[in-house]
Amino acid sequence: MDIKTTPKILQGFCELLPNDQKDFDNLVNKIKSSYAKYGFSNIDTPVIEYSDVLLAKAGGETEKQIYRFNHYDNDLSMRFDLTVPLARYVSMHWADLVFPFKRSQIGKVFRGERPQKGRFREFYQCDADVIGFENLDIKYDSEMAALIYDTMKSLNLGDFVIRINNRKILSGFFSYLGLSDYITEILRIIDKLEKMGLEKVNQELLSTTDLMTSDTIKKILDFVSISGSNKEKIDKLKNMQGNELFFKGVEELEDVINTSYLLGVDEENIRIDLSIARGLDYYTGTVYETNLIGHENFGSVCSGGRYDNLTNYYSDKIMPGVGISIGITRLFSLLKENNMLDSIQETKKGCVILPMSNDVNDYASNVAKLLRANNVTCDVFWSEKSGKAKFKYASRTGYKYTLVLGEDEKQNNKISLKDLETGTQETLDASEVINILKQ
Amino acid sequence: MDIKTTPKILQGFCELLPNDQKDFDNLVNKIKSSYAKYGFSNIDTPVIEYSDVLLAKAGGETEKQIYRFNHYDNDLSMRFDLTVPLARYVSMHWADLVFPFKRSQIGKVFRGERPQKGRFREFYQCDADVIGFENLDIKYDSEMAALIYDTMKSLNLGDFVIRINNRKILSGFFSYLGLSDYITEILRIIDKLEKMGLEKVNQELLSTTDLMTSDTIKKILDFVSISGSNKEKIDKLKNMQGNELFFKGVEELEDVINTSYLLGVDEENIRIDLSIARGLDYYTGTVYETNLIGHENFGSVCSGGRYDNLTNYYSDKIMPGVGISIGITRLFSLLKENNMLDSIQETKKGCVILPMSNDVNDYASNVAKLLRANNVTCDVFWSEKSGKAKFKYASRTGYKYTLVLGEDEKQNNKISLKDLETGTQETLDASEVINILKQ
Repeated sequence: MDIKTTPKILQGFCELLPNDQKDFDNLVNKIKSSYAKYGFSNIDTPVIEYSDVLLAKAGGETEKQIYRFNHYDNDLSMRFDLTVPLARYVSMHWADLVFPFKRSQIGKVFRGERPQKGRFREFYQCDADVIGFENLDIKYDSEMAALIYDTMKSLNLGDFVIRINNRKILSGFFSYLGLSDYITEILRIIDKLEKMGLEKVNQELLSTTDLMTSDTIKKILDFVSISGSNKEKIDKLKNMQGNELFFKGVEELEDVINTSYLLGVDEENIRIDLSIARGLDYYTGTVYETNLIGHENFGSVCSGGRYDNLTNYYSDKIMPGVGISIGITRLFSLLKENNMLDSIQETKKGCVILPMSNDVNDYASNVAKLLRANNVTCDVFWSEKSGKAKFKYASRTGYKYTLVLGEDEKQNNKISLKDLETGTQETLDASEVINILKQ
Repeated sequence: MDIKTTPKILQGFCELLPNDQKDFDNLVNKIKSSYAKYGFSNIDTPVIEYSDVLLAKAGGETEKQIYRFNHYDNDLSMRFDLTVPLARYVSMHWADLVFPFKRSQIGKVFRGERPQKGRFREFYQCDADVIGFENLDIKYDSEMAALIYDTMKSLNLGDFVIRINNRKILSGFFSYLGLSDYITEILRIIDKLEKMGLEKVNQELLSTTDLMTSDTIKKILDFVSISGSNKEKIDKLKNMQGNELFFKGVEELEDVINTSYLLGVDEENIRIDLSIARGLDYYTGTVYETNLIGHENFGSVCSGGRYDNLTNYYSDKIMPGVGISIGITRLFSLLKENNMLDSIQETKKGCVILPMSNDVNDYASNVAKLLRANNVTCDVFWSEKSGKAKFKYASRTGYKYTLVLGEDEKQNNKISLKDLETGTQETLDASEVINILKQ
C-alpha cells in the first residue's frame, strides 16, 4: 500500500469543485424548468448502444469521433449526441408515445477526438425536440423560438439575439439560380461567412463550379445581406424572383416570426439572418442560432431547427420534428473564463449549526431536527475544534446564516443567529429563526 | 435508404417511457432534496477514467465487471461505482475542499457483466458521504442514520427499518474467540444468514477452521441473535465478555443510536442487527442496511457505513468517512414490478391548450404567453385535427386541466377550463384560470 496511484482525470473531461458545480447545476435546473414549462417530458437513454444502431446514419467524420469498443460479442459505442438516441427511441416506442411528442433530454455525450485544448470529449447537452407523426404544424417552430427566448431570459446572461432563417428559402433561391447540385456546398461555404470573411468566401464560391460567375456571387451575397427590420426583410424577400420552394420558405419564416411575437418573443431578441444555414445536412426548414450580445466569439449558445424525417434510418414511419440544443458544459466553461458567473450565482439557502462544546451536542441535534422538519437546509459542524476553526468552516461552506449554540442558548432554549454577510448576531426563539431561514 | 437498422438497446440497459420516467425523476428529486437538506454538496465526475486510476483498488472480481477499452494510447475504464471516483476526487482536490466534506453524487455507473435476467449493466446510484480530514466525529454516523430516515420518509414507500451494526463489535467479538484470522470469512458467511438459513451457515462455519467448534458456533449464533429493544441489546452487549475493540464498538453503536433519536429518527424505524456486516471489506465501524417492511425480498434499498481511510490508494493523507448509497434504478424496477408506483405518482401540474380552429391560434398564443409568464406549465396542441383527436391528446398527456379555446372564448376574452378528472367545465377570466392552475 505504499505505492500510490497518481489521481488524475483525462484531458477534455470536466469535473468541478463544489461551488462551481452549484453554479453549473443552477444553469441546468433553469434550462430544465424552462423546458418543462413548455410541456416537454424528460427522457433518459443509455450511454452505451450497439454500434450498428448508433452509427446507422453516421458518416466518416462522425465515426472518427466515437468511443467504440468490443465487449463480449458486441460492438458498442458511446452516444455522441442525443439526437440519434431520440431517433432510435421514437422508432422503438412510437406506439406508446403521444404525438406530437415533446421530449427533453439533458445528459452527457462523448466525442473520442484526439485531445485538443478547449475541446471537451465529455460534455452535457440540453435538448428539446417536438416530433410529429407524419406531420408537424409550423406553429411548433414558433414555440421553439419562444422556448429559446424564455430559456435565455431565465439564464440571465445579458442581452441575446436569436438568429433565424429557413432552409427552404436558401434551397429555393439556389435552385432558382440553377445551382441545385451545389446547394450543400454553397451553404457550407456561406455558413463560414462570419468566420472567414467575404473575400475568402468569394474565392471558395468561385471554385465550386463553372456555373458560378461574379454576377451570381453578387446575387448570392446581396441575398444573404438583405437588411432592415424582420418585416422589411420579409417584404424584400416577397418581392424577389424565385420558385415555389423559395416562397414556401418565406411564408413559413413570416408565420414563425409573427407567431413567436404572440408567444412572447420580443422583436429586439429575434432577427432574420439569411446567412445562417447550420452545418448539419438534415435541417429542412426553420433554423435557429443564438448569440450573446458582446460575446459573439462564444459562437451560437443555443441552436437547432426543423427536419423532415428524424427516423429515416430505423423506421418506415415519417416523423418530422423541430428541436434545439444547448451545449451547457462549453457555455459554462466560457462564462467562467470570462468571469460571467456572477449573474447566475445564488446565495446558498440554509444554515450551519455550530455546537460550541460537546455539552450542547444534544441540544444541537434537537435544533437540527426541528429545522429539517421545517424543510430548512441545515448542516452541523460536529468536529471538536476551536471556535475559530468552527467559524472558518461556517464561512467557507457559503451559507448566509450560522447558528451558534453554547451553554447559554441551551439553558434558555434560544438560538444565536449570526448573519455572516453583515456580521450581526441576535438571540432568538427557534420559531423566529425558522421564519428567517424559510424566507 | 430502404434498408432500415432495427432499433434496439442492449440488455441490462434501462430506458423508460415518459410517464415512468416522470415517476423515476420524482424519486431521484426527492433523494436529491433530502441530501441537500442535510447540507451535502453535489459533485459530478467523468464517466470514463484512466484504468490504472479507477482500478487502483480493484481486485479480480471487480476487474471482470468493467467496461474497459483502449482509445488512442490510453487504457480507459467506465466507472463501476461512485466511491472510487470520490476517493480520486478528494485526493486530487483536497486542498480546495472544506472538511468535513459532505458530498452527494447521483449518476450512472456501469457493470460489464455477462447479461443475466434482472441484472442491470447501467444503473443510477445516489450516494452521500461525509469525508473527514485525518478524523471524523462519530456524530456524523448518526447524521447518516437520520439522512436515511428522512430520505425514506420522503420517498413514501411504506414502513421501513434501518438495520444498524458496528464492525468493531463483530471484529472484537471474533478476535476474543481467537478467530481473528478468520474474521472476514466468518463475517462473509454470517452476512448470508438471511439468504441461506441457519443450517447452511452452521455447515460453512464449521469448515472455516479446526478452531471452530459446535460450542463456538453456538456462541456466534447466540451473539448475532441477541434480541430485545435497541436499549436491551446494548445492555446485553455491555454485559458480555470481550476485548477493547468490542467495547469500543458497543460504545459507538450506543452513541450513534441515541443521537439518531435526537436527530429525529423514530425508534420504530431503526434496529440494531448484529448479523449484518456488509460484504465490502472496507467498512470499519457503523454499517447500515434498510429494508421495506413486507418487501424484505427486495434486499437492502439503502446501505452504507463507516470506513477508516477512503484515499489509501491515492494519497498519504488519511481521510475517514461515512456514506450511504441508494441503487435507484433497481429500486424503481422493483417498485414497478410490484405495482408500488402509485404512492409516488403525482398529478401533472399545468395544462394543455386546445385551439378549436385555426382562427383562434393567435388568441391561443396570447393565452400561452400569459400562463407561461406566470410560471404555469403549458402545452399547446397546434395540429389541425378533429375535436376528438384534440381531447384525446389532452387526456393522454396526463394534465388535470385542459383549456378549450373557440370563437366564443376569443370574442369574450374568456377561457373554458375543463377538469379532465371530473369532466366539469367552466368559462373563466384568464386571471381566475391562473389562480386555479397555480394552486
